Amino acid sequence: MSNEQQKDALWALRHSAEHVLTMAMLRLWPGKIKPAMGPATAEGFYFDFDAELKISEEDFPRIEEEMAKIVKEDLPIVKKELTAAEAKEVFKGNEYKQEWLEEIEKRGETAMVYSVGDEFVDLCSGPHVESTGKIKAFKLMKMAGAYWHGDEKNKMLSRIYGTAFESQTELDNYLNLLAEAEKRDHRKLGKELDLFIFSDLVGKGLPTLTPRGTVIRKELEKFVYEEETKHGYKHVVTPHLARVDLYKTSGHYPYYKDTMYPVMKIDEEELILRPMTCPHHFMFYKSKPHSYRELPLRIAEIASQFRYEKSGELSGLTRVRLFCLADAHIICTREQAKDEIKNVLNLIDYMNEKLGLEKGKNYRYRLSLGDRTDDKKYYKDDEAWDRAENILREVLTEIKAPFFEAAGEAAFYGPKIDIQMKKINGQEETAFTVQYDFVMPDRFDLTYTDQGGNEIRPIVIHRSSIGCFERTIAFLIEHYAGAFPLWLSPVQAAILSVGEAHIEHCQKLADEFRQHEIRAEVSDSNETVGNKIRKAVAEKIPYMLVIGDKEMNSEKLQVRKRGEWETTEFGKEEFIERVKKLSAEKSLEL
Amino acid sequence: MSNEQQKDALWALRHSAEHVLTMAMLRLWPGKIKPAMGPATAEGFYFDFDAELKISEEDFPRIEEEMAKIVKEDLPIVKKELTAAEAKEVFKGNEYKQEWLEEIEKRGETAMVYSVGDEFVDLCSGPHVESTGKIKAFKLMKMAGAYWHGDEKNKMLSRIYGTAFESQTELDNYLNLLAEAEKRDHRKLGKELDLFIFSDLVGKGLPTLTPRGTVIRKELEKFVYEEETKHGYKHVVTPHLARVDLYKTSGHYPYYKDTMYPVMKIDEEELILRPMTCPHHFMFYKSKPHSYRELPLRIAEIASQFRYEKSGELSGLTRVRLFCLADAHIICTREQAKDEIKNVLNLIDYMNEKLGLEKGKNYRYRLSLGDRTDDKKYYKDDEAWDRAENILREVLTEIKAPFFEAAGEAAFYGPKIDIQMKKINGQEETAFTVQYDFVMPDRFDLTYTDQGGNEIRPIVIHRSSIGCFERTIAFLIEHYAGAFPLWLSPVQAAILSVGEAHIEHCQKLADEFRQHEIRAEVSDSNETVGNKIRKAVAEKIPYMLVIGDKEMNSEKLQVRKRGEWETTEFGKEEFIERVKKLSAEKSLEL
Repeated sequence: MSNEQQKDALWALRHSAEHVLTMAMLRLWPGKIKPAMGPATAEGFYFDFDAELKISEEDFPRIEEEMAKIVKEDLPIVKKELTAAEAKEVFKGNEYKQEWLEEIEKRGETAMVYSVGDEFVDLCSGPHVESTGKIKAFKLMKMAGAYWHGDEKNKMLSRIYGTAFESQTELDNYLNLLAEAEKRDHRKLGKELDLFIFSDLVGKGLPTLTPRGTVIRKELEKFVYEEETKHGYKHVVTPHLARVDLYKTSGHYPYYKDTMYPVMKIDEEELILRPMTCPHHFMFYKSKPHSYRELPLRIAEIASQFRYEKSGELSGLTRVRLFCLADAHIICTREQAKDEIKNVLNLIDYMNEKLGLEKGKNYRYRLSLGDRTDDKKYYKDDEAWDRAENILREVLTEIKAPFFEAAGEAAFYGPKIDIQMKKINGQEETAFTVQYDFVMPDRFDLTYTDQGGNEIRPIVIHRSSIGCFERTIAFLIEHYAGAFPLWLSPVQAAILSVGEAHIEHCQKLADEFRQHEIRAEVSDSNETVGNKIRKAVAEKIPYMLVIGDKEMNSEKLQVRKRGEWETTEFGKEEFIERVKKLSAEKSLEL
Repeated sequence: MSNEQQKDALWALRHSAEHVLTMAMLRLWPGKIKPAMGPATAEGFYFDFDAELKISEEDFPRIEEEMAKIVKEDLPIVKKELTAAEAKEVFKGNEYKQEWLEEIEKRGETAMVYSVGDEFVDLCSGPHVESTGKIKAFKLMKMAGAYWHGDEKNKMLSRIYGTAFESQTELDNYLNLLAEAEKRDHRKLGKELDLFIFSDLVGKGLPTLTPRGTVIRKELEKFVYEEETKHGYKHVVTPHLARVDLYKTSGHYPYYKDTMYPVMKIDEEELILRPMTCPHHFMFYKSKPHSYRELPLRIAEIASQFRYEKSGELSGLTRVRLFCLADAHIICTREQAKDEIKNVLNLIDYMNEKLGLEKGKNYRYRLSLGDRTDDKKYYKDDEAWDRAENILREVLTEIKAPFFEAAGEAAFYGPKIDIQMKKINGQEETAFTVQYDFVMPDRFDLTYTDQGGNEIRPIVIHRSSIGCFERTIAFLIEHYAGAFPLWLSPVQAAILSVGEAHIEHCQKLADEFRQHEIRAEVSDSNETVGNKIRKAVAEKIPYMLVIGDKEMNSEKLQVRKRGEWETTEFGKEEFIERVKKLSAEKSLEL
């Protein structure tokens, strides 16, 4: 079976499971339940219904038991075609089905129904498995309210979410994954590990990184600045806001207006918070003439950017209203574009590797192509689109990158390569992009002088190296379940005093570590040492040193590494050198 | 003579010089000039007049010649007291003097006049020198327009600026200083050295740091982050904007409203760009309970802040509408406050020293005290003010800091110590401040638990370590006239190829330097080597290496240090080690 066929088979299975759920509920509460609708999804299935009585998650075991009976009965699932009038008779008294049948009747179509045994029939376009016996593994997950047609002006129905898999093993794997994802949820760990906070008085979608969260952020910033500098990027600092006219010139304003903050009038100027840096970097480029000798010019910035997200879409550090991007715009000749994109992808691979992310496993690439038929959303220049799309495809192929293509996902100014991160729950998310832009150079009248003295239009590549810091931090929290590599650990060494008498020694040791830029913290509270150890373990601190009488009088350090029960003995110098070396190398070792 | 007496004597001299100027012009253009007014100033003096004919700076030599004659004549300057009526007769036909005399008459006072010889008399309250012969050194500086009473609804008069000193040497020194300040003007050097740009399309007061300017900014940021971390500060990252309510809670909104950006409505929230970080840091503090064991808590942030400045007040990097401050708030017990302030001043001294600034010479402290009579501007609590002012005074005295006191210059929430930087032109400017705050802890209900389990109000110290980066960069540009210390130099080594054949070798050398994080640039343009050298000298690059046949075939490097004509020979390793070491030490040596 192809991937596509496998997916279709799973969808059919899940849709059948949903019919079994409906049937089970009708058996349990005959005449009390009005089925509304229920599709299969990437996660499983759900079922919306209107009930005369209160059904809750506590009823799940009874429902699941009834479902299991239906599965055991191995009832055939059979497709029938009815006229709309016949179907209306079958579903008499169910206004939800009637509403759909009205639609079908209006369109002059026939109604498709699926029956399960002799007892149950539902309006449904299928497909389904042949009989209920094929449903080997299913589970009900949770209940929620849901408006009919998703419209809050309609009646609120009840919804039961469930899932189904080909085998119990697959279902178990899925449930484990979900449990793991919940445990690793960056919003939960962010609080537990004291990495960031939100405050109502500050505002929605505006996180504050605590000192511990800030260590991670600063380490990532340093990493980006140093690596990009080594790779020939020139960093700039441009303002967080500008005149609206700047974004009108770029053409961003009409496209991004709804996600931009409101305009601020200051004297005679209309200012707006920037949703991106491109126009700023272009203004920098335009501040003086350029020769071909200067290209490629790689203009980078660790840049705060402001986008309005609907409050319902805000989520932890993943969806915020102010984010900071490791941003850059490469201005190059058309001939250089391919090599530059290759360099960008290599840099991304290198940096991801340092972050402990594996290509093909933790991330892959998506080639997002333009929809040539959509003149509003895509700049009209088929030849330029062809050339650009081919270059991106060639690069991905040449560097043997794992990638897939997606139509209609391009930016308005050209095709792009999306870096798709795989989250713990198995879902894929676009982390950031590499874009090929042949429109902005025109809009901003960017030029360079070639060897012959002619004014030529360059190409612009928009790119990031690790994406935005907020989202990257969220991703890393979940990836490492908070057990960060040494170089990213907010506290690298926890020094725990057994009693009051050992605190001074702990402080001295911590000071010595700090002189070597090792992030050490002393736990000097009057808790038991057992409690202190439990805390340090919960905080996933890489090294733990418990200091009592014996340790105070020894030249050696007894170090407990994260995840190990036995301590390892180190000379002090040796330990300091080790921590410095592993941090500098961004090693995953301890 | 005391400082104050010296100043008075200089003021008298300058005022007399202004009378001599007026008299000289009346001699040159009798009946054509109506003197309006003219005071002595910290810079010299000026003279406003209404003229029937066009007088320009081209006339300065003639006027100065006439002034010299009057000085040589050594005419006595004599004070007389007249009734208002007598004076009105003397100044008949001069509506400016008449207007003043009306005022004097209304108040029932007599008019003071000074005569110079028999020929000239002016309405003036003095004091003056005894005779024109005392004016040893003077110079006319420039001309400008000036509205009568500074009000643009009045007539535009002409103004001549001049200056006078006790001796020709002092005048020469002053003129040299002015020439030097002009040469060092950061706006001029910023352009010449390619450090920052402004763009109309981006907006007023919103600079962009170029790659070279950004190197300085990043080095300073790193310096601040590392030193503050070593000194026990915990860095956070808080959002650039927040709900207006946050600044209402802090009480900043009424005081800073006029200098804040307009409110932005987003959904149900009213957001505003932050003019300072204090409320953000307090919200972080309030996010969990605190014990006395955690204090002092030093919350730091390298923080962008947004203040509206009138467009007429904007100037280069010194006055901008968006700046980034090395900010911090120390939350401590009342007993810890004094030591904490001492630590802050010590850190400032240490960091200034690393920046090459000498205490007492390049900067001193100002103790800004509250005006107890101004209930609107100052929080009413005399005992708290007394305690706070005494602590600041004691600290300054104990650390033997050069300081002076200034009444009525405090913040609304407590007294402060201002760091007063001395600019090249001799003027003093407040770079940043250390503030003692006993108001905000109340407003935000900040507390900690003491050893006895009681909830106690802490004290807050607002402080910076090097001020805002924009202004610090501007100051350093002028201080070093662009010849930055090695660690701050945007380009540390210029590698100049003699001909085409040497370019590859230059590139290899530069790459090797860059691997060691030495900022090297190759000048590979097809200019003459002479031109390349002139450029590198103009750009004040610390090291210059000219690479020709001889250098290509040698193991040794011939390095020309900035300011030296002869080259110094280094082994390559030796040179690399030297640059790394001097940079790391922030040495002023090359």
